[in-house]
Amino acid sequence: MARLSSHDVRERLLEAGVRTFSKAGFNGCSVQDITDAAGVPKGSFYNHFESKEALGAAALQHYWTDGACDQLKILTRLDMSPRERLRTYFEEATAEMAQIGFTCGCLVGNMAAELSDHSPIIAIQLSAIFLGWSGQVAECIRAAQAAGEIESNADPDQLAAFVLNAWEGAVLRARIEKADRPLRQFIQTLFTILLR
Amino acid sequence: MARLSSHDVRERLLEAGVRTFSKAGFNGCSVQDITDAAGVPKGSFYNHFESKEALGAAALQHYWTDGACDQLKILTRLDMSPRERLRTYFEEATAEMAQIGFTCGCLVGNMAAELSDHSPIIAIQLSAIFLGWSGQVAECIRAAQAAGEIESNADPDQLAAFVLNAWEGAVLRARIEKADRPLRQFIQTLFTILLR
Repeated sequence: MARLSSHDVRERLLEAGVRTFSKAGFNGCSVQDITDAAGVPKGSFYNHFESKEALGAAALQHYWTDGACDQLKILTRLDMSPRERLRTYFEEATAEMAQIGFTCGCLVGNMAAELSDHSPIIAIQLSAIFLGWSGQVAECIRAAQAAGEIESNADPDQLAAFVLNAWEGAVLRARIEKADRPLRQFIQTLFTILLR
Repeated sequence: MARLSSHDVRERLLEAGVRTFSKAGFNGCSVQDITDAAGVPKGSFYNHFESKEALGAAALQHYWTDGACDQLKILTRLDMSPRERLRTYFEEATAEMAQIGFTCGCLVGNMAAELSDHSPIIAIQLSAIFLGWSGQVAECIRAAQAAGEIESNADPDQLAAFVLNAWEGAVLRARIEKADRPLRQFIQTLFTILLR
């Protein structure tokens, strides 16, 4: 195996962090588990991160900008109307959860449940992610209202926050049931009642 | 100190389990942490529970029937209309979260995030709790519809599931922000849009 550059080691640690935290939970894994998953020597960890918590915050950021944000691009696609974009966004997210057998869930929600009382640096990261996520969904709702696709003229920011809260809850229930029923039900309620 | 009966030891372990799992997370504490919090010898643990997981399932049940269910009684009070009961229920739950400084959150949501992929016995317990909880909220929504207090004639079970999902999400956000804003916003959106 070719010698890894420092940049490559960091990338591997970030990716292994996302996978391992998603599967085992933050407190359910050790630094050793993460370096094993990354295929790098344990000693190299502390050249890149001060602590498991510091990797936690960086992995969360990596998960968001490299994975979840890709899916968010659906919300700005121009080949669909705003309401269609919203529906496609949640349908794609449902399909992705089905693909991984309704395990792992959303790293944002998981870290919020596990760490928001214990890690200020992770809580700040989570806050920023929710704000950005909510803002993008609100923008799409606003566009759908302007296009006359949604009856409700309620505040889009307020609607977006409620919708994403309900999505996080539905993801939890899908993981418990190991089935897409709670996610399908979320989508149906969203488009027949809240955003009809 | 008087010698504790076997029943008392079990009760102490259940209560210490609820407190410790709520504060530190399931994977963030050891059996020793729980017996210390309960003030009982570590050796007594395995007379009562086969494993930390078995205590987890029993503590969840205890949390639900002894604490959370008390609050659910609001939903059947006869001195308020059904819609008022729903509002009071979420307002009381908000006040309770404020009292504990928006820490800990809901043990049901936390265990779902942390354990639904790893513990079938806890997943089954969580499923039963959600079903019962959702059923009681649905009953109240149905009564409010029958009393003409809610415009929407949407399926009460579907509405209840959506509302509780959004509540779980709002609790997560309140813990991140350490403020009641997400819970107040949840209540406002619920009663001005979904259940208006």
